[in-house]
This record gives sequence, structure tokens and C-alpha cells, in this order.
Amino acid sequence: MIRVVVNGADGRMGSEVVKAVTADAELALVGGVSLTHVGEDIGVAAGMQALGISMGNNLAAVLDTCHPEVAVDFTTPDAIYENAEICLTKGVHMVVGTTGLTAVQRERLGKLAAANGVGLFIAPNFSIGAVLMMRFAAEAAPYLPNVEIIELHHNNKLDAPSGTAILTAERVAAARKQAGAAAAPAHTQESLRGARGATVEDIPVHSVRLPGYVAHQQVLFGGQGELLTLRHDSLDRKSFMPGVLLAIKKVSGHTGLTFGLERYL
Amino acid sequence: MIRVVVNGADGRMGSEVVKAVTADAELALVGGVSLTHVGEDIGVAAGMQALGISMGNNLAAVLDTCHPEVAVDFTTPDAIYENAEICLTKGVHMVVGTTGLTAVQRERLGKLAAANGVGLFIAPNFSIGAVLMMRFAAEAAPYLPNVEIIELHHNNKLDAPSGTAILTAERVAAARKQAGAAAAPAHTQESLRGARGATVEDIPVHSVRLPGYVAHQQVLFGGQGELLTLRHDSLDRKSFMPGVLLAIKKVSGHTGLTFGLERYL
Amino acid sequence: MIRVVVNGADGRMGSEVVKAVTADAELALVGGVSLTHVGEDIGVAAGMQALGISMGNNLAAVLDTCHPEVAVDFTTPDAIYENAEICLTKGVHMVVGTTGLTAVQRERLGKLAAANGVGLFIAPNFSIGAVLMMRFAAEAAPYLPNVEIIELHHNNKLDAPSGTAILTAERVAAARKQAGAAAAPAHTQESLRGARGATVEDIPVHSVRLPGYVAHQQVLFGGQGELLTLRHDSLDRKSFMPGVLLAIKKVSGHTGLTFGLERYL
Amino acid sequence: MIRVVVNGADGRMGSEVVKAVTADAELALVGGVSLTHVGEDIGVAAGMQALGISMGNNLAAVLDTCHPEVAVDFTTPDAIYENAEICLTKGVHMVVGTTGLTAVQRERLGKLAAANGVGLFIAPNFSIGAVLMMRFAAEAAPYLPNVEIIELHHNNKLDAPSGTAILTAERVAAARKQAGAAAAPAHTQESLRGARGATVEDIPVHSVRLPGYVAHQQVLFGGQGELLTLRHDSLDRKSFMPGVLLAIKKVSGHTGLTFGLERYL
Repeated sequence: MIRVVVNGADGRMGSEVVKAVTADAELALVGGVSLTHVGEDIGVAAGMQALGISMGNNLAAVLDTCHPEVAVDFTTPDAIYENAEICLTKGVHMVVGTTGLTAVQRERLGKLAAANGVGLFIAPNFSIGAVLMMRFAAEAAPYLPNVEIIELHHNNKLDAPSGTAILTAERVAAARKQAGAAAAPAHTQESLRGARGATVEDIPVHSVRLPGYVAHQQVLFGGQGELLTLRHDSLDRKSFMPGVLLAIKKVSGHTGLTFGLERYL
Repeated sequence: MIRVVVNGADGRMGSEVVKAVTADAELALVGGVSLTHVGEDIGVAAGMQALGISMGNNLAAVLDTCHPEVAVDFTTPDAIYENAEICLTKGVHMVVGTTGLTAVQRERLGKLAAANGVGLFIAPNFSIGAVLMMRFAAEAAPYLPNVEIIELHHNNKLDAPSGTAILTAERVAAARKQAGAAAAPAHTQESLRGARGATVEDIPVHSVRLPGYVAHQQVLFGGQGELLTLRHDSLDRKSFMPGVLLAIKKVSGHTGLTFGLERYL
Repeated sequence: MIRVVVNGADGRMGSEVVKAVTADAELALVGGVSLTHVGEDIGVAAGMQALGISMGNNLAAVLDTCHPEVAVDFTTPDAIYENAEICLTKGVHMVVGTTGLTAVQRERLGKLAAANGVGLFIAPNFSIGAVLMMRFAAEAAPYLPNVEIIELHHNNKLDAPSGTAILTAERVAAARKQAGAAAAPAHTQESLRGARGATVEDIPVHSVRLPGYVAHQQVLFGGQGELLTLRHDSLDRKSFMPGVLLAIKKVSGHTGLTFGLERYL
Repeated sequence: MIRVVVNGADGRMGSEVVKAVTADAELALVGGVSLTHVGEDIGVAAGMQALGISMGNNLAAVLDTCHPEVAVDFTTPDAIYENAEICLTKGVHMVVGTTGLTAVQRERLGKLAAANGVGLFIAPNFSIGAVLMMRFAAEAAPYLPNVEIIELHHNNKLDAPSGTAILTAERVAAARKQAGAAAAPAHTQESLRGARGATVEDIPVHSVRLPGYVAHQQVLFGGQGELLTLRHDSLDRKSFMPGVLLAIKKVSGHTGLTFGLERYL
């Protein structure tokens, strides 16, 4: 049994992780840290205490009390860097789902993990379907170099384009470049600004924001007389749990930084 | 038999109209005018002359020779206004598929038509499916006021957004306003310019341009826990012919300006 | 304030109705009846009792105690006929979301409602988007008579095709017939049985059942060189609540049977 | 320059191959064989003769006259086996797009090719997008073993399901089995026969046949709270030409049987 602490255990994602870890026979939930500054207490803390599981507001104290092997972090962009420093310094492997770390910060934390002999796993998306979509997009790009991306989310999502869309565009562009494949030139002029979307590495990205949507993305490839479309729909946060559980089980075997769930597939 | 002249008979659309009129038992093709300045002679002229049909380069001369009841125009934006003046002055009903007339020009030509006792029919889209999509979009808007439009065309299309997308947005906005329905506010900020598309009457419009596409449009409605999507795909110019034939048969019964195929359905 | 009792208040749909009625300023929740034989007590009963709302296991007793104007029923196919007899006889208007009533039973209950001077509203689908999809499908059928339906649901759905798909096919067929429009003949032979789907009124219906889906339907129209597709996605039971609330507010104004939410739009 | 003969040069596919080979700087069209028994002479024969290219009705005679290195065959199911015997025996490499060969026949012809030291390339689908769709479907299956296939074609297609759909299902099933992954059990009963489609290796396959469609396929994967969809659209026979040209250039380097375009990618 791998001993697990969930940081942000009463957040939207963290509370799903609490349930998923508890239900997994290979994992033992030994502690949680509250996300009280966001004020999303949704009954998890009380439930965990009823089960005899430590639940606190101070990450370092919870780690010292519970002695986990792995800490899972679903907190906030402003807290994640410090959280990671605390865990890695104490020799705890980390699985990070919190967004907001820059590439430079990831590298620095990766060195800290390596120096302490532990694994640091960071992923922008824990859904296996989304990871496959990105992999297939990169595989198709050398053969069908003309690509656009449409991502569709609920109207409460604060940013556009989504992190997954940007990452997809970067991987497609890299694969295309490595293969020496080039997109056909475009002959279109915008008569209204924004019609042709944002541009990430020469790839147009379009962001739809409407109530009703959850998290969806389409990668559109156009060729001579044919179209290839990859589409991923996340309809429930449960879709991220298989990826989180997989990462918890694998992280101790990979010292230093690992970025992206596809590295463990 | 209704006597028909096709102006632009050797253009892409015009040559399809020549075939469709010839195949229709209620219509008689009596003349054509070449689109020679575009240089798209695709064998139509020779074929028509073989059939004993007049084919010329001068619209007024062809009208005087052939005495049509209806002239169909698929020419170019810079020629259409003058073409219409010539036909309407000579008492010939017109079916116009050429784009480029402004609202002011349409009104002025409509008065000229009325003064000459003939019909002037203008449509931005002759596809029955596209007309139904626009009608349904306007019908849905009062109940589901949150809307975005995605239109997808081949990479040789010069403009973005498409005329059909703009017209759809205008109709949705008008229907929404008339019903007193308002879209939910958006909370999204663009981190890359253009991600949220162009805006037509507060409705985001996204334009995809890739080889392989022909002419496609989706109207996306988002509600509480649900989505309604209308999608139209034009895969062949043949899709416009039923609408063109319908307009040729109806135009003589509607003196003055009629705008949009839905007016004849 | 309209006084409302929810029959099946602790079921999946009923508990959503409890929340929606409670949140609506024009409605007062005055009682609930448990769906105990399904054993889905999800805390609603306790919550209602804490609010001082009657919650019982016997419909007739709850009606006598709470004196509602409208009863909403989301129970089970084997119970609904008797439930309706009890409510209507006691002079209580009914909104029925429970499936399983035959056309004959609906007519018989409609007469009972009329004899007691109350309204009986029954709908196979309370989602406004789904109702619009069905309406548009019927409107398009005269112009594009070639139609197929694909419905996609989670793999725990017991029946195929869905009731909404069957109803859509019936409406499309009726509209097509009334307009004198006929579908083009098919030239396809199945090499494997079932490939061409089930047939409802000559319209092929295909049922997909996969984990991850919630409740989705596409109506596909094919014409000369063009396609028109209507798509509805229900991603959350919340999507049914606006329709349920609308029906509760309208039912007292329509004595006798009303079938289908589109009658109130 | 590779010397190429096209067998079936005046058929729908063959005449596209004639154009594509002629336009390719690395290939030389040296002869064609007419598909006269199908009676689809569409002007190719006359055009080829004008160019000084041999065009005959007898395959063996054309091969003896023109000395090609590669023969491309787009003829008919009843002719292809004998055509292949003639070419391979004469030491000519073959690219076969004609359908109808059984697995046993393919093996037998492969041995004949090997014995004569030439390559035999056979593909059920020459579209690069379709090949990628099949590859990705097989790659996704171990992670998302719940799959259904929808294929959509025009109403003149004679068979259902399509060959590509069957092949996709077989590959998905093989990949799933090799990975030891199993689909979740289904709980659905058909109330109308055919609703759940045809079954190929336990995978439901649904065939839509409507005017307006050309050749389209969707592979639907369902997981926990998520969906992954692969979609391919062939809108024009031109989409097959890049694959045909690739095969012509590669076939001489692969003695014996090669099956499927993905083997050359």
C-alpha cells in the first residue's frame, strides 16, 4: 500500500482524488490538507476525520504527522511552487495537477527533486483521452500538416485559449518541423478582427465559451479532398482519476522531473 | 416554359446553372453571356452554340436577341450593379447569386425593379439546408440566447468570416432582441488575441480555413446542462441548384425586391 | 405561490425537482413522497423534514395533508398510472415526467383530468433543446425528406432506441407525409444484420451505448450535395429543470391532457 | 522515371490515377487498359491516344507493348485475381486498389509475386487520413476498450457495413486483445431489431446511407466521464491519389505481398 496525502483535499479536484484513492486497493489515504483559503469546504474534512484520517491546514505539519510516500497537489497557482519545495525537501514524491508553474520553475523543482532522490510528476491534463488526442495530433502532423484547433469550455473558464490547446499546438508544430512538413499557405484576409483565431506556432486556435459545455477540444486536419478530426470530450472530473491514480503508482520509480501523462503510458 | 438567360454562363456557378436549367422541363435556356474577363471558359460556350443557343459577351445585346423572361446572374461584385440596371430597365426579371451588393444598392435596384413592374430576387445562399439552418438558428435564439458560430471553408476562400455566418449572426441577434432574451455574461479574458473570434452583434464567429473543406457552418447554442448544435455542410455546388430553379420559377410573381431564399419557401 | 408536491422526491430526477422548486420564487414546495421501493434515499427526506416539509411514503396521505395545487411525478413505469388516478381524482393538477404510459392510458387519464377540471401534462422530454431539435426536424423534413437518427447514451441505459428517437422519427414521418415529400429509395443491402439500424416509420435509427455518454441525439438530413444535421446533448439532469418549472406554472391553465413541452412554448 | 500502366484507365478511380501519374515528375505513364465492360469511357482513352500513350482492351498485350515497371489496378472484383496473375507472372510490380480479393487469394498472389521477384501491394483504402484513423483507433483501444463505429456513405453504396469499418473493427479488436483490455459489459436490450447495429468482433458498427454524403467514418471511444472520437471524411476521390502515388514509388522495394498503406508510412 502506497501512503498518500492529498493537498487541497476539500477542493473540487482534490475531493475527487480523496474518493479515488480511498477506493483503490493499492493505495492508503493517510492525510489531507484543506484548501480553506478558497472556502470550498464540501464535507470532506469532516468525513476524513470520521475515518481517523488527519486533516489539517498546514502542509508541513501534515507531512510530519502522516509520513506519506506521495503527495498529490490540486491547490492554486500562487501556492504550488512553495508546496512543492516543502514536499520535495522532506523527501516526499509529488504528483502535481495544479496549473501555473512556468517552464523555468518546473526545471528548478525537478533539480530539487533529483537532489532529494524523489520523483516529481507534473501534468497539464490527467485525462487519458486528452493525452491520446495530443499524441495522435503529433503523429498525424507530418502527413497532414494543415491544422487548426477548436476548444470549447463553459463560460466561467477565465482564460482563452486553454492550456491543453496551446500544448497541443506546440506538439503538432514540433512534429511537423521535425518531419520537414509545411502547411499550405493561407489566402484568407480577416474582414473582422479575430475571425481566424489566435495563433500558436502558426496554428490557428479558436476558443468557444458557452454555458453547457464542460471541457472539449477538436483538432482539425485538412488534406487533399479529405479531413481528419480528433475530438476529446471531458464531461466529468471523474475522467481525470485514472490518470491521477496511475501517476501516484508510477512516480516513485522516476526520480526527478517527469512532465506529461504520456510519459507513463 | 420560362425563357432564361444565364449571365456568367461559363463561370463555376453559371455553368452549373446552365446544366440545371437545361434539365428542367419547365424552363428553356435561350441565351448565355460569357464571363470572359475572368477567363474561366470551360467549354460551355462551345456546347451552347452547338445547341443553337446564343452566347455572347454583351449582356444588353444578348437580352435584345433572346428575349428572356428571367436573367440569372452569377458574375462578379464589380459588375453586378450595372448588370442589374440593364436587365431591370429592359423589363427582365432577375435572380441574383452574385455577392457584393450593399444594402443601399439592393434597395435602389428594388425600386428600379418595381418601377419596371418586374421582380428582383437576391440571395446570399441558395442552399435549402443553409436557409433552414439560419431559420432554425433564429427560432432557437429566444430560448437559448447563448450562441457562437463556427464556419469552415477551404483555404482558398478570400474572406473571413463568411457572408452566411454574418447573416446568421444578424438574424440570431434580431430574434434574441425581439424576444427580450439576453446571453449570459462571459468571464473569459483572451491571453492570445483572436482566441475568442470575431464579434458580430455580440456573437462570436470563428473561421476555419483548411484544404479539404468545401463550405460548412455550425451554430452552437449552450444552455443549462445542455447543448443544441445546428450544422450545415455544402459538399458540391449542385446543392445550390434546387434553390436557383425555385427562384427562377417564383420571381415573376413577386414585383420589386425579395431578399433571401426563405421568402420563397 | 403555487403549492407543489413532488412524488419520487428522493429519486435522481425528483431530488433535482425538489431543489429547483425550492429555488423558484413563484413556487412553494409543500410536500414529498419517497421512492423508497427503489431505495435511492439520498438525504432528501431528512433535508425536507428539517425544513418542516412533509415527506411520506403514501401519495394519497401526503396530498390530503399538504393540499398542493400541482403534483410532479418522477416515479416508475409500474406506478405512474395509479399515481395519476389518485392525483386527478383529488383535483390536483399533474406534471408527469415518468415514462411508461401508453397512448391509450394517456387518453384515459386525460378524460379523467377533464372530468375533474384539472390539467394533466405529460412530456417524454423536458429539455428545451431536445424539444427544439424535434420541432426543427419536423420543419426540415418536407424540404429534405431523407433522414436518419443516431442517439448516443451511457451503457447503463436499458432500452434501444430511446423514446426521444422514436418520437422524433414519428414526427418527421408525419411532417413528411403531410407535405407529400418522399425519401429517395435506398440501394444498400446489409451484409451483416443490424448495420442499417432499426426502422421507425421508414426512418433508420441507430443506438450507441458507451460509458462516458450522457444523453445525446443527432438527426441527419441528406440532400443534393448538402447535409443538415441537428444535434442535442444533455450533459446534466439540470437541463430538464427549466422545462419542469415551466410546466408546473402552466398546467393549471390547460384542463385535460397536454402532451409534449412544445405545446407550452 | 518509373514506367506505369493503369489497368482500368477509363474508370472513375483509374482516370484520376491517369491524371495523378501524368502530373508526377518521378513517374511516366506508358499505357492504359480500358474498362470497357463497365462502359464508363469518359474521354480518357482518346486523350491518352492523343498523347501517344498506348490504350488497349487486353492487359497482357498492353504489358508486352509498353514494358511498365508498375501496373496499377482499379478494375472489378471478378477480374482482379486474373489481372494480378498476368502482371506478376510477367515480372511487373502491382499496386491493387480493386476490392474483392479474399485473404486466401491475397496470400496465394503474394507467393506468386515473391517467386517472380516482384512486389504486390494491396490496400483497402488509399487515403492517408483513413489509414491514420485506423492506426489511431488501434492505438487507443488498449486504454479505452469501449468502442463503436459509425460509417456514413451516399445512398448508392451497395453494401453495409463498409470494408473500412470492418477492417477498423478487426484492428481495434486485435489491439484490445493483445493488451488484455476488455470492454465494459452492455446492459441494453433492443426493443426494435437493428437499433444496436451490426457486430464485428464484439464491436457495434452502424451504417448511415443518405444522399449528400460521400465517404465518412467515426470511431467512438467511451471512458470514465470522457469521450474520444476519431473522424475521417473523404469528400473527393482526389484524396486517394497521394496514397496511390506513394505506393507506386515504394512497391519495387518490397518483394512479395504488402497489405495496407500504413506499411509504407
